[in-house]
Amino acid sequence: MRTKAYAAQAATTPFAPFEIDRRAPGQSDVAIDILFCGVCHSDLHTARGEWPGTRYPCVPGHEIVGRVAAVGGDVTKFRVGQYCEHGFVATYNGATTGVGENTYGGYSAHIVVDERFVLKVSHAETDLAAVAPLLCAGITTWSPLRKWGAGPGKKVGVVGIGGLGHMGVKLSHALGAHTAAFTTSPGKVAAARALGADEVIVSKNPDEMAAHANSFDFILNTVAAPHDLDPFIALLKRDGTMTVVGVPATPHPSPNVAGLIFGRRSLAGSLIGGIAETQEMLDFCAERGLVADVEMIAMREIDRAYGRMLKSDVKYRFVIDMATLQNAA
Amino acid sequence: MRTKAYAAQAATTPFAPFEIDRRAPGQSDVAIDILFCGVCHSDLHTARGEWPGTRYPCVPGHEIVGRVAAVGGDVTKFRVGQYCEHGFVATYNGATTGVGENTYGGYSAHIVVDERFVLKVSHAETDLAAVAPLLCAGITTWSPLRKWGAGPGKKVGVVGIGGLGHMGVKLSHALGAHTAAFTTSPGKVAAARALGADEVIVSKNPDEMAAHANSFDFILNTVAAPHDLDPFIALLKRDGTMTVVGVPATPHPSPNVAGLIFGRRSLAGSLIGGIAETQEMLDFCAERGLVADVEMIAMREIDRAYGRMLKSDVKYRFVIDMATLQNAA
Repeated sequence: MRTKAYAAQAATTPFAPFEIDRRAPGQSDVAIDILFCGVCHSDLHTARGEWPGTRYPCVPGHEIVGRVAAVGGDVTKFRVGQYCEHGFVATYNGATTGVGENTYGGYSAHIVVDERFVLKVSHAETDLAAVAPLLCAGITTWSPLRKWGAGPGKKVGVVGIGGLGHMGVKLSHALGAHTAAFTTSPGKVAAARALGADEVIVSKNPDEMAAHANSFDFILNTVAAPHDLDPFIALLKRDGTMTVVGVPATPHPSPNVAGLIFGRRSLAGSLIGGIAETQEMLDFCAERGLVADVEMIAMREIDRAYGRMLKSDVKYRFVIDMATLQNAA
Repeated sequence: MRTKAYAAQAATTPFAPFEIDRRAPGQSDVAIDILFCGVCHSDLHTARGEWPGTRYPCVPGHEIVGRVAAVGGDVTKFRVGQYCEHGFVATYNGATTGVGENTYGGYSAHIVVDERFVLKVSHAETDLAAVAPLLCAGITTWSPLRKWGAGPGKKVGVVGIGGLGHMGVKLSHALGAHTAAFTTSPGKVAAARALGADEVIVSKNPDEMAAHANSFDFILNTVAAPHDLDPFIALLKRDGTMTVVGVPATPHPSPNVAGLIFGRRSLAGSLIGGIAETQEMLDFCAERGLVADVEMIAMREIDRAYGRMLKSDVKYRFVIDMATLQNAA
């Protein structure tokens, strides 16, 4: 199926219209007309060649919300998955199983997907655009929050109030944890409170940080830029964990292991999440009308949006209205 | 009580005889005649000023085995302790509670200790010298092995087969875990097997390392020298943990957080252990006749012993026979 898309042809060229071929739906496939696609920082990393291994042309986009257009004969229900220990088929810049071709993502009009990777959205129709970021920003924060027990009686911190972090604050709060947002900027305190943070800590203020020493059960660190991890590790209780979900282009300064040894603390990592827990998160959010805070853009605005993302100038996630692809120059 | 001891007067001078005053035993104190004192690498770090904060004269030694000489009127039994979250009174180079003086350690003939910090040794008389290292090397490896569940059905690795590591291998094996020792040197494979390692992995051999990828439940890393943590993190299963117990003088190379994120792995730290679990470990070892492998030295040989420790030329712990203090020049 010939499908309109938007692609980067090289690391340094702007995005432009491009046509891709989607496979004909197989027996277990679902064909989806894409309504909205969220814009994740990993789209930018990949399209601009900042991570190794980008194959061009590159059609990014993995926060995809759409409507089922057709299903294969064997499609019955969504099977559940687990933590992908043996690698995974990436939505874009990946190899299709057993074939080895490039995969093309959600910056496109249609997509054909094995039913195992399709999730059901139960939100109101008007929320669909703001649901898209749940499929990466939502699950990437939900999975570690659940794994490390965010809930009533726990004190949870979220570092970095961007696309992922703003969902981390919303979800931690909704799970019943006492939730603190960390920001480098005093000017962002009110916005963080509006997301549901019970308190907001300006991480560049040593006195504010010191007041919370040894008090956190769990800290979710969503910042992908290299930064000093030690001041946050010092805020963990005994046996507390800080979990990072971002991969910086250059390493963080090496953490002082004394901060781990005194307090028996852990520094951990977590990768997105499995299909079963993504459905769990979507249902949890649908029940509560919980969505991302998004700014809608047209397809042709994608390069400008990337530029604004680099300045953290987005509250908190861009979502592409895929109807605008028809007219994209 | 005037007590013979051996002290470093400065970071660069050799050890020499020195007399210290031990407090008169208070109501809850136990006075102990010291029989043996193990030599820990932290003795060397402190005596030579390699860690900040050494106060001279410095009398190191915290692996102390002796005989009770006197007890205060209120001494009844050993009360149990917990993980020391609010700091601790160090055996040497510490402040005595509420007083602020320096403390002097086990390179001395006698010591006076609050009964809360005294442990009962049930080993055979002939084992007493080799029990001394259990009080630091033993508990520092026992505590994380227990916390992270070393036991039957688990695959546990021990990195660094020195004073701590050789106890880690013995204890992990005795706890029933499938135990692998990591060494940088093919020449040490037989010695590591003799300690109870079910297998020995030469960590500088990438093929041997790769054969164990994603297979360890837990890795105990006892190496205090700065080294690359990533090759060991890559050997952890999903949700596996590597715990460090050594503080290097300069930081390890910064670990690649991708190694934590893919596999939801943790890098943790652990500090010695509490009094209750130290007694538990001593009793466990006494039941099994488990002790450290030691090389006995005379007090006056301490500087030479430090020199050999810096070359890892000890199997696996020096222990000072305190009877030799009487004649120390």
